[in-house]
Amino acid sequence: MNTSTHTSASSAARKASRAPTGAHHAPRLGIIGAGQLARMTAMAAAQLGCDVVVLAANEDEPACAQATRCLFGDRDDGVKLAQLAAQVDVITLENEFVDARALDVLERQGTALFPSAHCVTLVQDKFVQKSLLAAHGIAMPGFRAVSNPADVAQAAEQLGWPLVLKARRHGYDGKGNVTVHGVADIPGAWQRLGGASRGLYVEQWCAFEAEVAVILTRGRDGASVAYPVTETVQQEHVCHRVLVPAPLAEERQAEVVAIARRAVAAVGGVGSFGIELFLMADGRLLFNELAPRVHNSGHYTLEACACSQFENHVRAVMGWPLGATALRAPAAVMVNLLGAHAGGGRPHGLHRALAVPDVHVHLYGKTRVAPGRKMGHVTALGADLESARERAERAAAAIGFDVERAP
Amino acid sequence: MNTSTHTSASSAARKASRAPTGAHHAPRLGIIGAGQLARMTAMAAAQLGCDVVVLAANEDEPACAQATRCLFGDRDDGVKLAQLAAQVDVITLENEFVDARALDVLERQGTALFPSAHCVTLVQDKFVQKSLLAAHGIAMPGFRAVSNPADVAQAAEQLGWPLVLKARRHGYDGKGNVTVHGVADIPGAWQRLGGASRGLYVEQWCAFEAEVAVILTRGRDGASVAYPVTETVQQEHVCHRVLVPAPLAEERQAEVVAIARRAVAAVGGVGSFGIELFLMADGRLLFNELAPRVHNSGHYTLEACACSQFENHVRAVMGWPLGATALRAPAAVMVNLLGAHAGGGRPHGLHRALAVPDVHVHLYGKTRVAPGRKMGHVTALGADLESARERAERAAAAIGFDVERAP
Repeated sequence: MNTSTHTSASSAARKASRAPTGAHHAPRLGIIGAGQLARMTAMAAAQLGCDVVVLAANEDEPACAQATRCLFGDRDDGVKLAQLAAQVDVITLENEFVDARALDVLERQGTALFPSAHCVTLVQDKFVQKSLLAAHGIAMPGFRAVSNPADVAQAAEQLGWPLVLKARRHGYDGKGNVTVHGVADIPGAWQRLGGASRGLYVEQWCAFEAEVAVILTRGRDGASVAYPVTETVQQEHVCHRVLVPAPLAEERQAEVVAIARRAVAAVGGVGSFGIELFLMADGRLLFNELAPRVHNSGHYTLEACACSQFENHVRAVMGWPLGATALRAPAAVMVNLLGAHAGGGRPHGLHRALAVPDVHVHLYGKTRVAPGRKMGHVTALGADLESARERAERAAAAIGFDVERAP
Repeated sequence: MNTSTHTSASSAARKASRAPTGAHHAPRLGIIGAGQLARMTAMAAAQLGCDVVVLAANEDEPACAQATRCLFGDRDDGVKLAQLAAQVDVITLENEFVDARALDVLERQGTALFPSAHCVTLVQDKFVQKSLLAAHGIAMPGFRAVSNPADVAQAAEQLGWPLVLKARRHGYDGKGNVTVHGVADIPGAWQRLGGASRGLYVEQWCAFEAEVAVILTRGRDGASVAYPVTETVQQEHVCHRVLVPAPLAEERQAEVVAIARRAVAAVGGVGSFGIELFLMADGRLLFNELAPRVHNSGHYTLEACACSQFENHVRAVMGWPLGATALRAPAAVMVNLLGAHAGGGRPHGLHRALAVPDVHVHLYGKTRVAPGRKMGHVTALGADLESARERAERAAAAIGFDVERAP
């Protein structure tokens, strides 16, 4: 047994200053971003023996505790990105809300980056993404570029009312979308989305029957594996529940996977991608959007599949063979734990949640809760969707987070 | 997006100096020790939203990267233990090779410690452990206390030759055991084990048919859950392979679990415990030993059971309900990745290992390899033992670790 007696503070300082190219030389993965997606990716990478360095905004971010090392700074700061690149073999992204030009500089300096700057460029502007994928023959709701409020009214003549006015970039969980029911709504919606300073587009409102999603992981060599197709249920534009298998016949599931495969190949994607589609009442499948990263609709894969979306993402970007994606139980249901109030992040009710048989509780360790903030998730596997859903919902309902106390 | 631009070093220093009772107040678990068992426990605790603080010998230990915070020092240093206690809600142990008196002091200061100092006292001296469990009616090979070499010869008159001379404490993986075939062997064996300065005992040599093991997790309230019974295969006294289910009829498996339950209750255990038994040619089950901690024979539970031995250990010591332990596949095989040479810990062959279908590779991130050192493990699930074993062995055989390079 070793008996060194350094203090906590001095050892942590030594750890931070340790040469990243030290004696260990484990495979090294850098992640731009340090939220829950980076956290679960870091855990998968650690299991495979990787050193993980995250570029975080601050030390409270969920991935910091799970990383081998943390860098703190702005993810669009070229100097920080170069520092990250110097410490790792491969860099990946937690999400697409990054400056693609800074990534491009990084690649030109010789960094192995997956997905590539070019892929991020094609995907992060949803108007560019949809234009490209429509040109690849992927069916989707009609959409038009708009440069001013008058364009919106004109688009309605072709696409009909209502329309969805959307930000081209940085939209997620309904942020960046406004439904416009008629001409009178246009000025307000335009102003609300900051149309004067931000690129917008309009999309046909889509009366879908259900939303479905699939995770596809594509390797550096172009080979890809698809996970089972899921049904996703949003509440107030935020993913609330994911059910697998989706209520689709086998040949329709194959169609979803074929669309996903074509879309990810079209943008030259490497890594795990989340692809969302609308299922229409007449049975048509319309592409909604693609995220160049691990995705909330794939969290169920942690327990329901042999190799999770996170492990397969690590395998893909590191250039390793991809793992098995088949479902290990007849059904799985994932329920997000969303914040109800603003306050401290301390969970309560965990004791009751863990008393529900056979549920998997994931908490992200966030220090603050806010309305709608993703604080964790619960997955249940089962013999059928109904039993899995009942248990997942029951466990999720038991967990809450501290509300702000009066001072 | 936050845009703070602290440097890595200053942020890490701030993290180390952060008040452990800060705004987050997540459930906090302390672990004495920071090897691979602490690492996998820390990952399970993190998933449940716990802050984890490990007491490590140095920053290269496997659990350091997975802990929220690290303390560095001697695990038997009362001052360090008190520092750890001040930062967490509950303390647990990675292994029993600790000073039980230091733990006793900690408990008297009000620390919630599981397993308790009393339990560690009863278990860490194997002569005390076996005496106690024999008195509880648990069948085991004959054994005797010995104070000098003459006692060994005398014991042989009752127990027969060969005998196994064993250290009462700190024995594992065959370290601390010497087989004695006759009177002539006694002085050498006595000296080799340091009998003059170290407590020894002798045990009947046991011509077993197979070795079996079971993980039992016992909660603070005394309720316990058992995992499926495994067959363990040692090579040169080190666990090489674990197969589940063990080749035992159902009622014999129930007998193993009943013995384990009696043993863990007898020592007042809380947490996951590994219990090893000999299966004799005549069908008898003889108790071998008990480890008051997560155990190598239970690593397969990470993928093969809904709730792993690590998660159930966290649940038990935190006072939370225990999770499901049933096997999720017909068979599972775990193969250890043991070092062949001395050198750097960098893995190679991972690419080939991951090309084997449906295997789970775990690397512990150790910076140095040594002959027999546990560097990781591979688990395969399957429709039958033979297919799972073939894949696990094939993936394990693909992975090696750097040998020392000439300077």
